[in-house]
Amino acid sequence: MSFKILREKIKEKNNPAVIGLDPRLEYIPAHITSEAIKKSGKTQAAAGEAIYMFNKGLIDACYDLVPAVKPQSAYYEMYGIAGLEALHDTIAYAKSKGLYVILDAKRGDIGATCEAYSAAYLGETDIFGEKQRVSGADCLTVNPYFGTDGIKPFIKDCEKYDRAVFVLVKTSNDSSGDFQDIAVESGGALYGRVARKVLEWGGADNIGVVIGATYPAQLAEMRELMPDTFFLVPGFGAQGAAAQDVRPAFDAFGGGAIINSSRAVMCAWVKPGDGENFGKRARDEAIRMRDAINGAIGGETR
Amino acid sequence: MSFKILREKIKEKNNPAVIGLDPRLEYIPAHITSEAIKKSGKTQAAAGEAIYMFNKGLIDACYDLVPAVKPQSAYYEMYGIAGLEALHDTIAYAKSKGLYVILDAKRGDIGATCEAYSAAYLGETDIFGEKQRVSGADCLTVNPYFGTDGIKPFIKDCEKYDRAVFVLVKTSNDSSGDFQDIAVESGGALYGRVARKVLEWGGADNIGVVIGATYPAQLAEMRELMPDTFFLVPGFGAQGAAAQDVRPAFDAFGGGAIINSSRAVMCAWVKPGDGENFGKRARDEAIRMRDAINGAIGGETR
Repeated sequence: MSFKILREKIKEKNNPAVIGLDPRLEYIPAHITSEAIKKSGKTQAAAGEAIYMFNKGLIDACYDLVPAVKPQSAYYEMYGIAGLEALHDTIAYAKSKGLYVILDAKRGDIGATCEAYSAAYLGETDIFGEKQRVSGADCLTVNPYFGTDGIKPFIKDCEKYDRAVFVLVKTSNDSSGDFQDIAVESGGALYGRVARKVLEWGGADNIGVVIGATYPAQLAEMRELMPDTFFLVPGFGAQGAAAQDVRPAFDAFGGGAIINSSRAVMCAWVKPGDGENFGKRARDEAIRMRDAINGAIGGETR
Repeated sequence: MSFKILREKIKEKNNPAVIGLDPRLEYIPAHITSEAIKKSGKTQAAAGEAIYMFNKGLIDACYDLVPAVKPQSAYYEMYGIAGLEALHDTIAYAKSKGLYVILDAKRGDIGATCEAYSAAYLGETDIFGEKQRVSGADCLTVNPYFGTDGIKPFIKDCEKYDRAVFVLVKTSNDSSGDFQDIAVESGGALYGRVARKVLEWGGADNIGVVIGATYPAQLAEMRELMPDTFFLVPGFGAQGAAAQDVRPAFDAFGGGAIINSSRAVMCAWVKPGDGENFGKRARDEAIRMRDAINGAIGGETR
């Protein structure tokens, strides 16, 4: 769904945070994995079952608290077909709990191929003349390296099916500057050129940008350039950014951005060794994150 | 496997061409789709079966002729879990026929996430303490937008498991220039900066580059910059490039590059309406392509 719906959900829950569901088996408490192994052995099938049960527990513990979840496709692809079944099931379960689902898959290719990716994740696939929805995601992250014709098919489906994409602009990782920060002859850095293209590509209800919480100065610069654009901000928590760092992501009304934390929430049970209560631990961390961010934004209304 | 093996296979078959397996249902002859529908209805399962049977037919018709196949992940993802099963089965079947398999998935993300993608496609996944190989691919295409730490996990697995990656440098699509051609302050275009980083990242046996056949001048420029690097060259055939266009991709010995054609080979049966003989039509087109490229390269030995 478009960012209109996401904005509503953020407002309703007074929480601009999304939980990243990046479930490595190592993050899953023993009572879940041992049950899956008992049932299916040390197989990919058991891995898929354990992942889904873990995600379900996290969603059950937090769905009333957060507006959205963001499964990262890589952590499902690495467990093969069973992992991808867990991804589909997780998306469906999150939707059944009223959550907005951002599928973080960072797809990008030539136009014809992006039509296929878009059918897979945003639109519908023609199966022998019958249109079928393959994934239940509301929104997809996409990579801009191919330029306009690698983005247009996604935008077309966003408009047709009321979905949204986040285009990578300035990513949260240490070496994101290798190319994204390169000074271009016409002035500014490459990521700024990407941001300007995003503004050309379409409307603020369907096309947002990814800008890492680990780069607060760039967050502020981009917020100034694109006051109406929705920001997905990864890098909070385990990657090192804190509430003060993400403050510049928000617009003048304290809205327009959603902050992701994955490992800090998913793995909140690990340090206290409290796997039995992983849901409660995740919830406590999600509350802590919500309050920290709302505190940093101040008293503004969204 | 590394490019050493790919180079050997190219030499052995005297053919520097790879068939792209991008199987939209619309490209599959009626005798295959009707059988799948009879068995499983107009379902994703039937789509997966039809895709696998089509790919198997193409591989059976061409495996003695070409060194490699390149399945494009998007065209499997769009058919859901059944599509991904068809991808796994296609990779396994191609390997059983001695073909080198380039999985064209253009993955790219932050380091931790690329470790997961690399486990999925190049290395192994830890499933409850047991290492398992999830995909059978030899080689993966990757997107450089995240910079060095988005590439390192792939390179590590390439070295450990004797595999290879192709990094996008200058893609074949019309708007690839939007960002890739941007003039950077320190001179040259962005794609050249990416190419220079590729040279820093590792050895020519494991890290190649993608440069589109639709940009012959850039092919020549990049060949001069990176004389030992292996090139994956898409854009031949349906995308518009011809044998003369790809000549500059090859090194001084007529080697070091592999040219992809997808639709022109897969859909060779469509224009003559000869679905029953789609394999033979694909083979004829693959021979035509091989001879055209070898003719353009001239009498050089690889």
